[in-house]
Amino acid sequence: MAKRLPPRLSDEEAALLLDVLFSQHYALELVRSELADIENGDKAADEHRYRQLLRLYDRLLTERE
Amino acid sequence: MAKRLPPRLSDEEAALLLDVLFSQHYALELVRSELADIENGDKAADEHRYRQLLRLYDRLLTERE
Repeated sequence: MAKRLPPRLSDEEAALLLDVLFSQHYALELVRSELADIENGDKAADEHRYRQLLRLYDRLLTERE
Repeated sequence: MAKRLPPRLSDEEAALLLDVLFSQHYALELVRSELADIENGDKAADEHRYRQLLRLYDRLLTERE
């Protein structure tokens, strides 16, 4: 799967997109899907990215409670 | 539905989350869901936010093609 480059977002667009992500309660699920893709080999990721995603997942999980 | 405040994300966490959003090809669907919630009255939004979301949606749509 070719790595699609995200479009260049303005700061305002990026902030709006992140706000919608939390407003739709989808941030945790999104990171969970990416981790699953990496763990079952559907997506390549180096150790650094994988650890970043794990840390982000834990933070989102604890923030949610 | 109480407006949940997104957790304070670091710039690095915000960039990672946005990257995953595009890597999972979910940005367009996410904005579409928020627009639908506003249009069917499930979510309150002022005119400014609604127009911002419409512009963002159009941009994501054209970038995708």
